[in-house]
Amino acid sequence: MGARPSRRDQILDAALELFATQGITATTTRDVAARAGVATGSVFYHFATKPDLIEAVLGRAYVGPDLQTIADRSDRPVRERLLEAAQLFLATLRQRRALLSVAIQAALVDDRYRLRVRANIDDEIGVLAAILDRTPGATTSSLSSRAIAATLLRSLVTTAVLHPEPIAGEHAFIALTVDLFVAGAHGPGPNAGAPSTEILSDSGR
Amino acid sequence: MGARPSRRDQILDAALELFATQGITATTTRDVAARAGVATGSVFYHFATKPDLIEAVLGRAYVGPDLQTIADRSDRPVRERLLEAAQLFLATLRQRRALLSVAIQAALVDDRYRLRVRANIDDEIGVLAAILDRTPGATTSSLSSRAIAATLLRSLVTTAVLHPEPIAGEHAFIALTVDLFVAGAHGPGPNAGAPSTEILSDSGR
Repeated sequence: MGARPSRRDQILDAALELFATQGITATTTRDVAARAGVATGSVFYHFATKPDLIEAVLGRAYVGPDLQTIADRSDRPVRERLLEAAQLFLATLRQRRALLSVAIQAALVDDRYRLRVRANIDDEIGVLAAILDRTPGATTSSLSSRAIAATLLRSLVTTAVLHPEPIAGEHAFIALTVDLFVAGAHGPGPNAGAPSTEILSDSGR
Repeated sequence: MGARPSRRDQILDAALELFATQGITATTTRDVAARAGVATGSVFYHFATKPDLIEAVLGRAYVGPDLQTIADRSDRPVRERLLEAAQLFLATLRQRRALLSVAIQAALVDDRYRLRVRANIDDEIGVLAAILDRTPGATTSSLSSRAIAATLLRSLVTTAVLHPEPIAGEHAFIALTVDLFVAGAHGPGPNAGAPSTEILSDSGR
């Protein structure tokens, strides 16, 4: 890989742009080739089918590594790390709005893509849940860590769709949500029983 | 209005179906007319422009009234009402998957539609927040009610996208989230400061 994007990357960039603007269903492999400035055969050389191309677009690196860095700072308070991770997640979804759009469209149209998108967000939920799991003195079970992380991250996906730009007071609003969760997770609180472990995974069915 | 759908409803049904399956951008007014079995002029008679048609699709009744009925049952515990409202919201999003798909697509492509979709979810957030606001003895401020309701409902939107069918243990998972929130809202908990009131509204900027 040199300074110039590889042909494969050119194709993925073109596909991302077209999928986001004109829709996954309406975009043909031929359209992608034309936009990327390559022969249609070149698209098929890299991606045998349109579903393969869609999966490759969805598979492009997400926020995982950066979230992990925040999660690993165990010298910092849980609340601070959760908040910073949530902000980073939201900022990244906004920056990668085209990818967000393609991921949601794909999840809406087809089981195969939906599993891929779930696996992506599932990884991120796991990173956030681990911040809570490693909290000394918390009464949080790994299931409630998971519930907090999943609810927070899934709500930020919708926030990014509805608010492409930050809203006034948004940071404080997210902080309040995190506080309510952290307070609830540390308090005694009513217990909802023992749900099945299947729901520990966002990619599970 | 008789037993048969009006021509306007026929057009809206056809538009909803095509927008959901082939995408808002790729669907022309002519396509909608053909699918509805009416003349293109008839579509323009009811909806002067394609954006007007899209707005009419988005404006179709949402879960508001049913949520309100649950919210109004003040003889029942807050936790129970929140949980039932959340379940109803999720079930409705799943039943109206085509509308969910169109709403998300629309919110992603254009400011005008985004405001409309925000206004819809904003109404529902208000209904849920009111359940918490009227709780005797809760330390919840109207802002934290709003934060709880917004986070919960927005997370359910993403859940409906990623999981078109209920997942095993899902009810207990949502119950746990509600419990964590309710426990946090009733506890002393750290305070996140005083965020701007602008964020009280999901449709605000």
